[in-house]
This record gives sequence, C-alpha cells and structure tokens, in this order.
Amino acid sequence: MKYSMALCQIKGSFQKEKSIEKADIFIKEASEKAEVVALPEMWNCPYGNKYFKEYAEEENGRTVLFMSKAAAQNGIYLIGGTIPEAEDGKIYNTSFCFDKRGDLIAKHRKIHLFDVDIEGGIRFMESDTLTAGDSVTVMETEYGGIGIAVCYDVRFPELFIDMAKKGAKAVVLPAAFSKKTGEAHWDITMKARAVDSQIYMAAVSPARDEKGPYICYGHSKIIDPWGKEIAAAKIKEAVITAEIDTEYADDIRRQLPLLKHRKEELY
Amino acid sequence: MKYSMALCQIKGSFQKEKSIEKADIFIKEASEKAEVVALPEMWNCPYGNKYFKEYAEEENGRTVLFMSKAAAQNGIYLIGGTIPEAEDGKIYNTSFCFDKRGDLIAKHRKIHLFDVDIEGGIRFMESDTLTAGDSVTVMETEYGGIGIAVCYDVRFPELFIDMAKKGAKAVVLPAAFSKKTGEAHWDITMKARAVDSQIYMAAVSPARDEKGPYICYGHSKIIDPWGKEIAAAKIKEAVITAEIDTEYADDIRRQLPLLKHRKEELY
Repeated sequence: MKYSMALCQIKGSFQKEKSIEKADIFIKEASEKAEVVALPEMWNCPYGNKYFKEYAEEENGRTVLFMSKAAAQNGIYLIGGTIPEAEDGKIYNTSFCFDKRGDLIAKHRKIHLFDVDIEGGIRFMESDTLTAGDSVTVMETEYGGIGIAVCYDVRFPELFIDMAKKGAKAVVLPAAFSKKTGEAHWDITMKARAVDSQIYMAAVSPARDEKGPYICYGHSKIIDPWGKEIAAAKIKEAVITAEIDTEYADDIRRQLPLLKHRKEELY
Repeated sequence: MKYSMALCQIKGSFQKEKSIEKADIFIKEASEKAEVVALPEMWNCPYGNKYFKEYAEEENGRTVLFMSKAAAQNGIYLIGGTIPEAEDGKIYNTSFCFDKRGDLIAKHRKIHLFDVDIEGGIRFMESDTLTAGDSVTVMETEYGGIGIAVCYDVRFPELFIDMAKKGAKAVVLPAAFSKKTGEAHWDITMKARAVDSQIYMAAVSPARDEKGPYICYGHSKIIDPWGKEIAAAKIKEAVITAEIDTEYADDIRRQLPLLKHRKEELY
C-alpha cells in the first residue's frame, strides 16, 4: 500500500486566528501532494507554560472544528499536530487526528511530559501546567496503522516498538525540540526509532522563530524503515513530502525480523 | 569515577594459536593505556556456522585460560570479546569477562541469535548451530557497572535500558556487523543505544579481512552518554581508547531523567 505523506513545518504566532489561517493555507498546499498531512507540536499556541491555559480548548473548540473541516474539505487524513486541550480542569498536549470525512478518529495525549534541565540549554517543566496522557495511539486508516506520539515521547523506544506491534507502519511525531537537544539528538533519535521499530518515522517541527518565545530546532524529516532520510526541511517554513510504502516496511521486517526476535521475558 | 577503556580491533585467523598470539600482543598494548580492555566478537574463530563447533571450548579451555592469565598479568579488566563456548552438547556465542586478578566475574551468552536474510546482503542463521543465552549481564567493577551484550543484541533497545537500570554506566558490545548492515545501521544504532540508555557505548568489531570467510564492517567506536563519538577505528587493526566518566553519565541522567520518566505500565 503506497501513499504520500506531507509535513507542514509552520511558524507559530501569538494570535490563534493567524495560526489557523496559516495552517489552512499549508494544509491546502500539502493536500495537493499527499493523502496524509501533519502539523507540528503546539502550532496554535506559543510553546511555554504561561500560554497553555489561555490557548487551551475543549474537544469541540475552534481549532478542533477548523481541523475537522480542513480534513473534510481537502479529503485528507489530518494529524493535527498538537494543541493544548482542556478537559475537567486539566490541560493536555494533544494531537487530534481526522479522517477524510473530517471525523475525529484518534487522539493522542503526550504521554511523557518534558521535565528537563539541560546545562547550557533548556529548562522546562511541562508538568507544572500539563497532565500526561495514559495510552498508546495507533490510528487505523485504509493505508494501514499510523502511530501518533508527541516530541519527548520519542525518547522512549519501547513506545515505538509497541506501536509497531499494534500495527503501525508509520509514526507521526509532532515535536518541538530545542536548538541544543535538536543539534545533539534529533537526527540520531528519529533514525533510531525508524530502524529499531522498522517504521516510517515522520517528525514534524514548527519552523524556527529566532524572535519567538521558544526557539525550536526545525528540520522536520521523514525516515524510511531502513533508516534512510527520504524528506527533510531546514529551519524555515516548508511542506515536505515522501512516499510511504507499507509493503517496504513489511519487507524489511521479513529480512530482519526484529519484532519476532525480541525476548521480552528477559528485560 | 574515571577510567580508560581500550578496544582491540583485531583481525581473525583460521589458526586459533595465531589468534591467541595476536590477542596477547594487542591486550598488552591496550593495557598500557587502559584499565578496561575489550576484544571483538568471535576473535578466536572464523565467523561462520561451519566453524563454531570445531573451535568451541568449554569454560576451562585454552582460550579462557589465556584470557584469565592476560587479565592478571596486565592487571586489567578484560572483556574477552566472544568465543564459541561448548557446554552439554550445545554451543553459545559467549563473552567471558575477567577482573584484574584474572577471575572470571561475568559471562554473557548472546541472547538474540542472528537469523536474518538481507536482500543483496547477508543471509545467516546462527540458530542452526548456536543456542541463545537467557540472561542480562552487568559486570560489577570498582568503576561501576559495565554491561555486556553481543552484536545483534544491540538491535533491542529494551535490553540496554534494562542494563542501565541494573547499574551499567557503560556497555561493551563485541560485534561483527556485516558490511551492508554496518554501512546502514552501525553508527545510528551505537549512538542511539548511548543516547536512549544514557550510557557509554563501546562497540568492538574485528578488523576487516576482505579475503576472510566473513567480511565485517570494522569501525569500532566509543560513544558518550550524550551521543558524541569519543573514539573510532576505521577498518584496519587498531587499539582505540577513551576516558569513561561515570559521573558524566550520572549528570546526563540528572539533566534529562529518561530512566525516571519512562512509563513501563503503558507499553
């Protein structure tokens, strides 16, 4: 099964309506080339603890309704990056995902909150404001399973292996790595998840905004299940696309049967 | 705690005594620079199913006694690469590990047998002749825990995370990747294990022998817990060394607490 995937590396804004307008334009452009389109992490909200509550929406909110409509109008699967989601007084870092009719068919709440303190780099405590999700997400589509994970989730290879076991042939990761951790780990980690889990790994970052409240790494990319980079952005806004071939993933798994060879009883 | 580690990238031979002589010379050289010295996979035996039985030894065999003596005489910890080990009619791909007095303090039998069939590359079925090990190995030393894994074991990140949880600050991996899988995956995989598990990752390959029965990748290397390459060989015989600083591993784990953040109940 072959299909085309597009990642929209767009720059954030303090104005939600402006962010939605931009997403609308990029989704349309991406839809001309792809059946599955993805947005980056926190694309409708500045990335920072002090903004999440103000920008958060419930499941029937403005941004979710926009995404549903964009999926239906363009006839695409839309992996809606992430937005802050409000529910029962809590806020989650959530990816809403829609089918070609605009129906919400999957929702991934970031499982691992980014609570780190990197020397000479970033200090961030997402758990000061956010609540963690508690489930693994694989979206069923006519193109096979597509796993969804968010940013720091990528540091935990077991999650990706679990998604592969649950049928994911590709995983989309909306992510906003910082410049420092991105330079050190973005490329290694995305390639490793692809090779270890034998999946297409699609990481979609916001474009870099040197003047914004958070300077992210950029460099959205798609890696094939053999570890080869098949699409890559730099730091500016861009749409990148690649062909996903689920039979190629099957073929790699047949040649090198990692999923069958693991001995989970031992570790 | 700081110490120096040396990897001996040596070329194999059909004559076991010649291989032992060579190992003896390389271990001596390495001992001048390092407290922990490691040999590659199957260094006393050609790498191929038809050789393992003929070259296999029991735990009190010629090669094990040589390694014990070499560790004691040079006053080093010796991670003895691997050799085919015979026990009760079975053969294992085993790493014998010795302390500075020459006592056997750890023994790792390769857990994941290499049964693969890569298109345009290698076909190998280790399980035709070898039996798999069934336990995770972390060697206790005055320099902290040193995990041991063998070649294809590296494809399973969970094993390395488990070793880190069991106290490993460094892992030594005797390994003989093929040229094709090496070019595609050696570098990515070694760096990923270091970054995911926040360990020093030391991969020690045989030197390449273009005329030998198995053409291995070479490129022995040591990666630090931030993913930086701190020592690297090319394809010829070489001793490479690097300083291992267990406090640096602790520091990385404090800044980016991956071992604490994982949610094993979910995947």
